[in-house]
Amino acid sequence: MKVAFAQLNYTIGDFEGNSTKIIANIGKAKTEGADLVIFSELSVTGYYPHDLLEKKEFIQKAENTVVKIAEKCVGIAAVIGAPRINENSRGKKLYNSAFFLNEGKIQHIQNKTLLPTYDIFDEYRHFEPNREFNIVELKGEKIAVTICEDLWDELPTANEFGKDKLYQISPMEELSKLEPDFVVNISASPFSYNQEEWRKNVLINKAKKFRIPIFYNNQVGAQTELIFDGGSVFIDRNGEVVKELKYFEEDFMIVDTENFGEKQLQPKSETIEKIHNALVLGIRDYFGKMGFRKATLGLSGGIDSAITVVLAVRALGAENVRVLLMPSKYSSDHSVEDARQLAENLGIKYDIINIQSAVDEFETALSPIFAGTSPDITEENIQARARGIYLMAISNKFGHILLNTTNKSECAVGYGTLYGDMNGGLAVLGDVYKMDVFRLAHFINLENEIIPVNTITKPPSAELRPDQKDSDSLPEYHDLDRMLFSYIEMNLSPKEIMEQGFDEAVVNRVIRMVNMNEYKRFQAAPILRISSKAFGFGRRMPLVAKY
Amino acid sequence: MKVAFAQLNYTIGDFEGNSTKIIANIGKAKTEGADLVIFSELSVTGYYPHDLLEKKEFIQKAENTVVKIAEKCVGIAAVIGAPRINENSRGKKLYNSAFFLNEGKIQHIQNKTLLPTYDIFDEYRHFEPNREFNIVELKGEKIAVTICEDLWDELPTANEFGKDKLYQISPMEELSKLEPDFVVNISASPFSYNQEEWRKNVLINKAKKFRIPIFYNNQVGAQTELIFDGGSVFIDRNGEVVKELKYFEEDFMIVDTENFGEKQLQPKSETIEKIHNALVLGIRDYFGKMGFRKATLGLSGGIDSAITVVLAVRALGAENVRVLLMPSKYSSDHSVEDARQLAENLGIKYDIINIQSAVDEFETALSPIFAGTSPDITEENIQARARGIYLMAISNKFGHILLNTTNKSECAVGYGTLYGDMNGGLAVLGDVYKMDVFRLAHFINLENEIIPVNTITKPPSAELRPDQKDSDSLPEYHDLDRMLFSYIEMNLSPKEIMEQGFDEAVVNRVIRMVNMNEYKRFQAAPILRISSKAFGFGRRMPLVAKY
Repeated sequence: MKVAFAQLNYTIGDFEGNSTKIIANIGKAKTEGADLVIFSELSVTGYYPHDLLEKKEFIQKAENTVVKIAEKCVGIAAVIGAPRINENSRGKKLYNSAFFLNEGKIQHIQNKTLLPTYDIFDEYRHFEPNREFNIVELKGEKIAVTICEDLWDELPTANEFGKDKLYQISPMEELSKLEPDFVVNISASPFSYNQEEWRKNVLINKAKKFRIPIFYNNQVGAQTELIFDGGSVFIDRNGEVVKELKYFEEDFMIVDTENFGEKQLQPKSETIEKIHNALVLGIRDYFGKMGFRKATLGLSGGIDSAITVVLAVRALGAENVRVLLMPSKYSSDHSVEDARQLAENLGIKYDIINIQSAVDEFETALSPIFAGTSPDITEENIQARARGIYLMAISNKFGHILLNTTNKSECAVGYGTLYGDMNGGLAVLGDVYKMDVFRLAHFINLENEIIPVNTITKPPSAELRPDQKDSDSLPEYHDLDRMLFSYIEMNLSPKEIMEQGFDEAVVNRVIRMVNMNEYKRFQAAPILRISSKAFGFGRRMPLVAKY
Repeated sequence: MKVAFAQLNYTIGDFEGNSTKIIANIGKAKTEGADLVIFSELSVTGYYPHDLLEKKEFIQKAENTVVKIAEKCVGIAAVIGAPRINENSRGKKLYNSAFFLNEGKIQHIQNKTLLPTYDIFDEYRHFEPNREFNIVELKGEKIAVTICEDLWDELPTANEFGKDKLYQISPMEELSKLEPDFVVNISASPFSYNQEEWRKNVLINKAKKFRIPIFYNNQVGAQTELIFDGGSVFIDRNGEVVKELKYFEEDFMIVDTENFGEKQLQPKSETIEKIHNALVLGIRDYFGKMGFRKATLGLSGGIDSAITVVLAVRALGAENVRVLLMPSKYSSDHSVEDARQLAENLGIKYDIINIQSAVDEFETALSPIFAGTSPDITEENIQARARGIYLMAISNKFGHILLNTTNKSECAVGYGTLYGDMNGGLAVLGDVYKMDVFRLAHFINLENEIIPVNTITKPPSAELRPDQKDSDSLPEYHDLDRMLFSYIEMNLSPKEIMEQGFDEAVVNRVIRMVNMNEYKRFQAAPILRISSKAFGFGRRMPLVAKY
């Protein structure tokens, strides 16, 4: 049997656009001789529609779209994903379903069994779990249809407190009793640079253990914070990955189950390249799917804004990016020079506004109220907020979306000004630790010096007071990032982090900074997620709490 | 049997403080002759700890605290709530459990069966559902212990698309087979002004249907956005509410199941008074539990900031509230006068800063870049953002937390400036529609004219350009609020809203405004929740989507 992978990029709620894409790929697969073409989880709606699933008209549109697509399945079968009403009197209103379409109609429906409800996943919020297992027949072949998590009944855990078997049943165990010839898994599995290998290994182990080939077809493209990386695979019954589709791009491939021939794998790439490509896709889809074209940001001469602007130019084109250089009296000469050089290297429009007179104006107006007080963080924040006003003015006047340049290390310890440099429609680096920001700089500069070397080599500084350096108030980033990763991604306790060789007082101070700044992150821009635990939707901490 | 209600206000993660309170109430109940004292759901940790539940040391502290409290239960039994590790190899790591403590130890544990995972509830994110039902015996009485949602297996639905039976099983049905003498329900059920009656009726119907008395004990106090209203009740086997504890306050009461005597109910109060009391409690606990004392905000002379400052003064005391009056060239004389009058009526400190020169400074600096463009929303936003800088400067310099004054109608349609008047640590009125803001004003002014009448009677205006009125760009609030309630609380479709008699174009425009402004609300301050559907954690909409 010839099975086509259609690895596509969907827009949430765009029934017209998504179904047009799906129907075009059904046509292509049929023309190229496929018997079956598979799409991804909730492909009709895009993954994940969140509480749009609570709207009746949304579900009705999804149902109508499934019927419309089914009508195109003549001489070829297809598997698509969509929500579906649970007609039983008990349970959640919906199922998360795979529709097996054939001969112009819905031949079979398989509901999702394992509903991930952790980290960024909220599926039990909307869906009732499946409890019945069936297989579907096509041209004499028996096919087991599964949906994403259905194959992930064993999960990796960040530390020994986690649990690797989150569910009471294993769909693959149930389905294997029905002796399918192969398994189709329609998926929507987001990219995490530190869980990639694990994800593939789970599939390999499942194929090997049950001796059943698996077609794993993933969504590609970004949905606000989440970046789906594609990388769909066909794994044979020995657990060999035989075919692999592209990463971070749409792709299409037909595999003949009788004669799948040579291995076709994607070239190996370094983690930092994947992060780079993920972020570029994240920016491009945020803009493209919102109908925006143009971005702005402030270039400080520092490394975070430098990386952000390079990624923006790669995602949107130089002609769609304009920047502001906003020196104050604390800015070093080389900062402005480095920023200007970078803008020229990239060929983007830039303007320079000195913020000093606006800052002076605020300080003068406040001086009667502030009489008798000493300068502190207040005055530093006024600078950051004045810059925020200029950037938002550009955004408002010309329709450029402001990109936020905060990195994950800063975001973690609250090293940023709310309503100042924390402004932005999208936080590009909010899930990238500072050490990885440096790695991105070296990756970007591999062939040419796009980012001025001085930007990379000088000590990081917010330049909000004379001779300020990040290392005055924070541990060196090399240490800080390791502590943060242990606390955030690994969920280790202070004691366990100290056991890695860090000083007790430093660990406690860092953790306290992370905990104290939940209120800032609560109001932060959406963050492009590249790790297994990003700030935002997947990490839900109470604001008012003692811990 | 004498059963004591201890209706208490807990702080999330404050094991020391919570257990001290619980132990004190065990002592009090024992002294007053009770056989059993009941607390609320997750009383040891506070409800809801969110992803703190994923931290091993958090769970260990909870376990240790349960043991510590059990040791105090000598000569009296108690029911407390805490998370507990699921020792089975499969399923979520934790249970949400009720611990029946007696004779210095844990006599019985009942895990929660129905785990709400909708709106603001995320329980299946952390907990495995119970599947076993037992009763516990004390002095010859058979007691069924349940946890909150366990009695709410029938839910109200906002519209006919909702589902009233979300769960496969009914714990009360299972437990009734064991013939308990009464049911204890430890609860953490937040206030919603439009679901109050329903909540009590579910309990009444359960008692009546199964002919079993119910002790329903609720948490009181605010946890960031959520306001728990207490109002614990004892319902007899005929479904009569015989005893009722206070609303929005801690309370304590002993009920003798053999001889419960006269009805003791709370005085009836109007919905607007409840909303008022909920918001005051919400502010007080946000500050008290965070360790803050002082608040600031901008007084515009308008009704939203007027209500917010009155509520703040009632929650924190006049000595802890200071305000800024920040006129621009578009401010009417009476606005400043009304604001000043209000500040004087309340006896709070106020300062006046004219924002015009700061605004002029920004416009001058931007004029080369803006050459050839016309004034638009950009210049209005600069005013709002300059005010934001002044307020945050007061906040930073003196440690006053900025209160946000945006009401729900504005928040819904995006009528507010991000990083300007949307600033704040807590949004006091973000779940209060404009018409209810007027009702609050009349309630506050019932006895004395605290809020200047002119503030209430003048047409609402943002005063960001000459002679601006809200009604220039929005439908009258009377209509707007009805459309918004239908769309947000009721989840009705545009068509269903039109059928209420609204113009198609107006409905579509309003809904489009709501949908378009998800990105602003994403970065908004936490909102005190008083309705069944507030913006924030309980309403999760995709940012990048077409709908």
